[in-house]
Amino acid sequence: MDPARLSPKQARALFRSGLRTTTSGFSPGYAQANLIALPREAAFDFLLFAQRNPKPCPVLDVTEPGQVSASVFDGDLRTDLPAYRVYRHGEPAEERTDVTDLWRDDLVAFLIGCSFTFETPLLEAGVPVRHIEAGTNVAMYRTNRECRPAGRFRGPLVVSMRPIPADRVADAVRITSRYPAVHGAPVHVGDPAALGIADLSRPDYGDPVQVREGEIPVFWACGVTPQAAVAASAPEFAIGHAPGHMAVTDVRDSCYQVP
Amino acid sequence: MDPARLSPKQARALFRSGLRTTTSGFSPGYAQANLIALPREAAFDFLLFAQRNPKPCPVLDVTEPGQVSASVFDGDLRTDLPAYRVYRHGEPAEERTDVTDLWRDDLVAFLIGCSFTFETPLLEAGVPVRHIEAGTNVAMYRTNRECRPAGRFRGPLVVSMRPIPADRVADAVRITSRYPAVHGAPVHVGDPAALGIADLSRPDYGDPVQVREGEIPVFWACGVTPQAAVAASAPEFAIGHAPGHMAVTDVRDSCYQVP
Repeated sequence: MDPARLSPKQARALFRSGLRTTTSGFSPGYAQANLIALPREAAFDFLLFAQRNPKPCPVLDVTEPGQVSASVFDGDLRTDLPAYRVYRHGEPAEERTDVTDLWRDDLVAFLIGCSFTFETPLLEAGVPVRHIEAGTNVAMYRTNRECRPAGRFRGPLVVSMRPIPADRVADAVRITSRYPAVHGAPVHVGDPAALGIADLSRPDYGDPVQVREGEIPVFWACGVTPQAAVAASAPEFAIGHAPGHMAVTDVRDSCYQVP
Repeated sequence: MDPARLSPKQARALFRSGLRTTTSGFSPGYAQANLIALPREAAFDFLLFAQRNPKPCPVLDVTEPGQVSASVFDGDLRTDLPAYRVYRHGEPAEERTDVTDLWRDDLVAFLIGCSFTFETPLLEAGVPVRHIEAGTNVAMYRTNRECRPAGRFRGPLVVSMRPIPADRVADAVRITSRYPAVHGAPVHVGDPAALGIADLSRPDYGDPVQVREGEIPVFWACGVTPQAAVAASAPEFAIGHAPGHMAVTDVRDSCYQVP
């Protein structure tokens, strides 16, 4: 099974049958998405939070309450992601590969752009993506930057980090800035301490990754930010993807590219 | 009083004191915005409608319920637009220059990008803007294209039309496509009948404008679309701007420009 050769439909079928893996490198050329599902009564506050924080929370699609597929995702949101994280009153209560029995009629699902989407054009341009080389999950960190609050939702900006050779940082900026719907250009280049990240080797989500001689850590806004907001804001119930275990959509990366 | 020399603050003071006029040409260099204020219980459906229809409904800002200013608008939303249109159960009930006594604690105000914003760069590039030359309001039309519905909101796409010399259409596309937050590139060039517009000389909102020999009508998505959705969807109460009578914001046009 070569993840790079699977169609989104094939990848989702594997996840539905129980394969649990990070989706980085799966179905290249197709956009991946973060999931956060919330009760209808919290949905306005969250949509406003996303509107006010478009770098970490670019909304690709929103379902009607109770709906289990989406215009960008012709699968079942309850089974077709490799893993889910369930929150009760803001606390991560459990991780699962199937949330069918937990899905409620009042849940509104938000699909949020994911930076895995721009890894394909980075690789095509010869910019190395270490965590794909290593076969691990991307490293993600909570930062000391607060998102703009909205209603009950507040929380820190979460970022993903990729070590980039110094002479390719400009290319990485240029290439990713063309994909604003999947987090776009980096929010920070260099010094992790300026973001309040004390130790790069201990990410808050995902796996650590080596920053080699001649490389600089580059930070992009991350779609796990909504889950950090759930943790900070404690809505009664929420279902997210397990970080790095994304929804593989049916939309081509190029659809989210601007000139 | 030269509208082109007024700061946004000065323009708003004039409107607050009762001046009723279309705002095209006012405070050039500053973005203008459409207003739609809705009861909190309808706000999620509307924000979702905007998210699903980003060309006509690019959201610049959303207030908390009852708030009367906004981060992009350091004035009073109840008095500082030149004119308002009040809707009850979807019917335009009255037009006013002050809605202070009608503003409710549960109203959420949405500020939506306006194509007046990109008229300054059009003029700077020597692309004529007829309705500014003529000192009239821009011509706006309901089309036969339906927006993507969301919850209770549905309705037709509304467009604004500017006649553009055939050899400047490409420039008009190129320039306006750099302003996606204020409707961006045209949605249609040429034949009005294809949009279901039977007679260009009878706009649904604003004033008619002459299309001269050698010019072609060019249509942009319009921020009156939310008001057409209010008319089609009949929420209990809504306050919009009177078409063409916009909120003059404190944000520079250039802030909404992409590379």
